[in-house]
Amino acid sequence: MTKSRLMYLPLGGAGEIGMNCYVYGYGPADAERLIVVDLGVTFPDMDGTPGVDLILPDVSWLEERKNQIEAIFITHGHEDHVGAVGHLYERLGAPIYARAFTANLARRKMTEHGYSEKSVKTVGKWPETVKAGPFEVGFVPISHSIPESSGLVIDSKGGRIVHTGDFKIDVNPGIGEPFDHDLWESLGKDGVKALVIDSTNVFSREEGRSESTVGPEIEKFLKDATGMVAATTFASNVSRVRSIAQAADRAGRSVCLLGRSMRRMVEAATEVGILDDFPTVISPEDVGSLPRENVLLLVTGSQGERRAASAQLANGKYMGLTMKEGDTFLFSSKTIPGNEKGVIHIMNQFSELGVDVMDDSGGLYHVSGHANRPDLDVMRDLIKPQTLIPMHGEHRHLREHVKIADAAGVQGVLAVNGMMIDLSGNKPKVVEHIETGRMYLDGSVKVGQFDGVIRDRIRMALNGHVLVTLIIDENGDPLGDPWCEVSGLSEMGRNNAPLVDVLEEDLSQFLGRAEDKTIADDVRLEKELRTVTRKSAQAEIGKKPEVTIVISRLA
Amino acid sequence: MTKSRLMYLPLGGAGEIGMNCYVYGYGPADAERLIVVDLGVTFPDMDGTPGVDLILPDVSWLEERKNQIEAIFITHGHEDHVGAVGHLYERLGAPIYARAFTANLARRKMTEHGYSEKSVKTVGKWPETVKAGPFEVGFVPISHSIPESSGLVIDSKGGRIVHTGDFKIDVNPGIGEPFDHDLWESLGKDGVKALVIDSTNVFSREEGRSESTVGPEIEKFLKDATGMVAATTFASNVSRVRSIAQAADRAGRSVCLLGRSMRRMVEAATEVGILDDFPTVISPEDVGSLPRENVLLLVTGSQGERRAASAQLANGKYMGLTMKEGDTFLFSSKTIPGNEKGVIHIMNQFSELGVDVMDDSGGLYHVSGHANRPDLDVMRDLIKPQTLIPMHGEHRHLREHVKIADAAGVQGVLAVNGMMIDLSGNKPKVVEHIETGRMYLDGSVKVGQFDGVIRDRIRMALNGHVLVTLIIDENGDPLGDPWCEVSGLSEMGRNNAPLVDVLEEDLSQFLGRAEDKTIADDVRLEKELRTVTRKSAQAEIGKKPEVTIVISRLA
Repeated sequence: MTKSRLMYLPLGGAGEIGMNCYVYGYGPADAERLIVVDLGVTFPDMDGTPGVDLILPDVSWLEERKNQIEAIFITHGHEDHVGAVGHLYERLGAPIYARAFTANLARRKMTEHGYSEKSVKTVGKWPETVKAGPFEVGFVPISHSIPESSGLVIDSKGGRIVHTGDFKIDVNPGIGEPFDHDLWESLGKDGVKALVIDSTNVFSREEGRSESTVGPEIEKFLKDATGMVAATTFASNVSRVRSIAQAADRAGRSVCLLGRSMRRMVEAATEVGILDDFPTVISPEDVGSLPRENVLLLVTGSQGERRAASAQLANGKYMGLTMKEGDTFLFSSKTIPGNEKGVIHIMNQFSELGVDVMDDSGGLYHVSGHANRPDLDVMRDLIKPQTLIPMHGEHRHLREHVKIADAAGVQGVLAVNGMMIDLSGNKPKVVEHIETGRMYLDGSVKVGQFDGVIRDRIRMALNGHVLVTLIIDENGDPLGDPWCEVSGLSEMGRNNAPLVDVLEEDLSQFLGRAEDKTIADDVRLEKELRTVTRKSAQAEIGKKPEVTIVISRLA
Repeated sequence: MTKSRLMYLPLGGAGEIGMNCYVYGYGPADAERLIVVDLGVTFPDMDGTPGVDLILPDVSWLEERKNQIEAIFITHGHEDHVGAVGHLYERLGAPIYARAFTANLARRKMTEHGYSEKSVKTVGKWPETVKAGPFEVGFVPISHSIPESSGLVIDSKGGRIVHTGDFKIDVNPGIGEPFDHDLWESLGKDGVKALVIDSTNVFSREEGRSESTVGPEIEKFLKDATGMVAATTFASNVSRVRSIAQAADRAGRSVCLLGRSMRRMVEAATEVGILDDFPTVISPEDVGSLPRENVLLLVTGSQGERRAASAQLANGKYMGLTMKEGDTFLFSSKTIPGNEKGVIHIMNQFSELGVDVMDDSGGLYHVSGHANRPDLDVMRDLIKPQTLIPMHGEHRHLREHVKIADAAGVQGVLAVNGMMIDLSGNKPKVVEHIETGRMYLDGSVKVGQFDGVIRDRIRMALNGHVLVTLIIDENGDPLGDPWCEVSGLSEMGRNNAPLVDVLEEDLSQFLGRAEDKTIADDVRLEKELRTVTRKSAQAEIGKKPEVTIVISRLA
């Protein structure tokens, strides 16, 4: 009988923040039974992925081993952990397990994609477990910035793995279970092979702050504010949403929820029974009948997203509501790197309306959902693992986390996406490098990261585009002159002649002196026309555009 | 005789950070004699200005009044104050005045554009002044993050204006004159009509820190570092560059300058005689002969710019030099909003090389060059102006600064780009709104902000592009089928047929049923073909692409 091994393979989230997807396997090499932890997405931007709707992990490796997959486990309901379930379910074809709140969100995604709700199974918390092939997996409650976040205990004959998922150490998190030191310590008492652990905040040196510190500050703020107040936070941070709503209630303000995800999250949390003390909300239509100082709008769009409620309010109006001089907008959130410009844009729009803006620069109105460095130390000390594998972080986070573990006498392993680690022996080793990457959801189709589609878009955006059409007659002679159309290029060249005129003239001259065999040869002719076009544009406007050549030959 | 008025008109920098350009006028309304303060640029990004090389203020208003312009004054040598002199000189045709270091930089720009060095005139510091029509202008030394920064005293019969330029209050700035409280107080003793004042740091509540605090920290850092160290900062911060180089010298490290602007700034400062104590530098070729712990590379690229020395080192090699495990990279800088992703990318690349990265998150290795809120208060109290006009800031900065002035009993005026303020009376008033905006330098030509060129690029980047060509024969019938080419779109549609096949089929079917009069009408036919193409693409891939239609009619 072949020897079995215990294997770890990150496909997303290890070497980046977002798009979490981790694989564990147990069994004979290359024939392991597999489980998947999290199926997240990440978000496109204009710099690298213009026009793309959503970025998914490339799960080709898993798809080729579809019949080895026992189950998919989702640690919590953030998009970078659950966002891809609807998009990738068919390719993986395994049941999805999650706790009630997460399962509620996952089911909404599945039905949006036309799948049955039944493919998502609700699991109770540890010590309840799910049997998945050679694995037994339990959901251990852990504090984070969304309800019912869980770390996973993953047991097999290869030993115990503790996979934290995203977490912070908060003994007073509002909604959800407080962090339970004894419980987590108990998981490690019989030895843990590997602790696979969140790393996003490894560079934050202070101890993390509790969610419970935010509500009172917001209440103070709301009591002092004069006009209408709008506050934004991540809708999924239901505990924060509740804190803000309750603070408003106590400050004599009625709460109006704006934005689809804000309403959906409150709905989901209510459905699963973890949000029974949310103040009564009023509709946007009712806002007008109240004095402004008795209203709090709780809105989506903390990251400056263009279509969110916050951006539309900043732009002038949302659902008939407007903000004005004397009102205040509160960011109960931090800006994710890359979103600064969008957030600043909104702040300036509010400024133009005379609306005051408060953000978290004073450190009062937001706390992070992730464990800072001292909290990571606490977790490591509780679990006392044989090996520590940092996950969910950019390369610099993972590397720093490995250093910290090593310095504390625990062997750290730096494993980025695609590195398959054999955990069987006493010393983990890299046994294979898997090709991984990203897939782009673009409109209704999926596009590969390297198949040139997005590269072409970026090139058109940077260089502009020239289209050249040429008709060749039955005798093999050009019929009339070549015709140019330009997009995204200056209409006029440096000599104040229209750019297309100059291009067409240069192309005509080229055709006038071109040999018959060049004109007869599509490939060669196209290449030459492209070269002439690019040179001509470079001389005229100082740019080398993308060029499409269409040669039509009359039969 | 018509009454004269004193006028202020920002054309850039008021409502944004960067691209500073301010106009002052004195004389009869609409016939004022004008002076321009600063001619700066701002930088493009992929979000809003893909492919653009540089962004300049739209100076059409000034150009139409070219014969009213007496002079251009440049407060200091940062690109957002001097960067456009070469690009706009011809349009304005007035002499440029600056102090020696700034003039040195401005002259390099002028000669790059083929203008004479003589158009830039060097001015000594206050109390020396320049007569420019009805104005007398003096350069008052002020501390900032580049040598020889100056505020301007602008005297006319309309009263005294004090224009701070960018500044901080630093009595120990390293290179350059310490902030002189007595001098600045003396400017205000006979009354100041208006204080036009930097606002970028108005939200920073602590007193600003001195440049002199940075050097000792960097020296400590360099003494503790083991391998090779590379440090980056803004090259124009010559005082910082010198501090780092001297710290290296004292820590037993030879300094090698990498990057064109780093060498150019050191050269300019040496030429004008303000940098006589810079340690001897070594060439990149010499680095190899020294132990790694005896080298400091001082490199360009603190903002993650793709082609700068820092990015190339992170990418593996620059000028034959490589960094590796045990080396350290130091950011003696802060990241400007919008540049986070580029900087983080470099950090991760260094992490992959095993290079440790230090940045200013601990607050030790960088100080800002701008006045924080308490320092703005100091300046206002020294000058005691009748009116305070915040400049150089986004709308939110200007608005906050006006609030602060009002609270301190000084009337504040919120004037954004294009608002012409009449300062003649006791109460400044907005007398006109000028159309202002931006011009894009794109390759070798200038493109207007609103003429659609950049909008087309962004659309191609977001939506992809389809080209449709169709030939109509002598009888008015389609000759063969329409031909499609796609760029930046998925090759395959949802039914796994090639997208172009589906588009061509749908277009053919449309032509088959189209009426003769539609086919005979270019405008109508083009419109219909575009609609069919977009609908077909929407059905097939869920995107509506940009479409170019070329109809060729055989005569």
